[in-house]
Amino acid sequence: MLASRGTLIVNLLSSPGSGKTTLLAETAKRWKDRYRLGVLVGDIATDRDAQKLAPWVPAIQLTTGGACHLGLPQVQRGWEQWEGERLDFLFIENIGNLVCPSSHDLGEHTRVVLLSTTEGDDKPGKYPKVFRTSHGVVISKLDLLPHVPFSIPAASDDARKVQPHLEIIPLSALSGEGLDVWLRFLETQRAMHVCNDCS
Amino acid sequence: MLASRGTLIVNLLSSPGSGKTTLLAETAKRWKDRYRLGVLVGDIATDRDAQKLAPWVPAIQLTTGGACHLGLPQVQRGWEQWEGERLDFLFIENIGNLVCPSSHDLGEHTRVVLLSTTEGDDKPGKYPKVFRTSHGVVISKLDLLPHVPFSIPAASDDARKVQPHLEIIPLSALSGEGLDVWLRFLETQRAMHVCNDCS
Repeated sequence: MLASRGTLIVNLLSSPGSGKTTLLAETAKRWKDRYRLGVLVGDIATDRDAQKLAPWVPAIQLTTGGACHLGLPQVQRGWEQWEGERLDFLFIENIGNLVCPSSHDLGEHTRVVLLSTTEGDDKPGKYPKVFRTSHGVVISKLDLLPHVPFSIPAASDDARKVQPHLEIIPLSALSGEGLDVWLRFLETQRAMHVCNDCS
Repeated sequence: MLASRGTLIVNLLSSPGSGKTTLLAETAKRWKDRYRLGVLVGDIATDRDAQKLAPWVPAIQLTTGGACHLGLPQVQRGWEQWEGERLDFLFIENIGNLVCPSSHDLGEHTRVVLLSTTEGDDKPGKYPKVFRTSHGVVISKLDLLPHVPFSIPAASDDARKVQPHLEIIPLSALSGEGLDVWLRFLETQRAMHVCNDCS
């Protein structure tokens, strides 16, 4: 239904603190005059992330009260609050958890996992399911690369052993490096999955 | 049973890549002539962490094959491989996940959650259960503090709103800063929980 209205749904997964919220805020700043965006923000407790996003993009907080992932019914109820809106991109910011959310299909067109340079380049093999089920990997916090033991080629090789077709996008939401590649990736995904001449 | 033999059991919880393995390796290096240590290392896949620890401390890898936390039967089976050994400290390195492991009692005396400076100082309120059920919080990766937006007082306040008696230990396993406080914390926990004149 959303695809027929031209909305690409993107499910963002990562560990806590990998930079999902910051990436979405920076995406929204750059696209404010170009696309209509919305974010459904999942958290176990608090509405901190929705508050952070509110100046830049319409955001609805979904609070699980303890559950380690979002489920489809909760996402549907969140979406219904926008019923009638026509968005170009609907982002689902999942609970910070590299395990459970990978097992739950939220109806997304595109699944993206964030791996920050501070988490270590050995994580894809250790948490394979989220990498196996994703279309893209954002390697976030590129600005910290000089200070941490992390190799982008090693992380990319490890991720592609799990899923050879992964698109890998290193970026820093703080410095802006790599964000152009991220925005092109999203536009390409929308062109692939969503009709272009929706009524 | 382990307490009667003088073994303190410590359950370490955190997000992926917060530094559990590195902290345990540095702990083992400093205590190699002082205490007998053992580590049960939980991971979803691979034995990478046990391999990293092997030069410094006896480590048994527990692989869940997908489950988001360790369970008591698995920990018991791991421990049985050491049956007869007399350890001073048995560390359980849980799955990298700030949610699910907090709901599973592994028989530990002491639960410690690691929060790295790169994850953000807003995490205790967003993932309250793991902070509420822990005795100590290690704020790890102190060496990265100059490069990241993280306030130790803000993180400590947020954590103590959830659990006022939390002991908070900022450290860097890489630079060694704060490790003396960590080692004293462990010794104090052992003195509190475990008999001192075990046969």
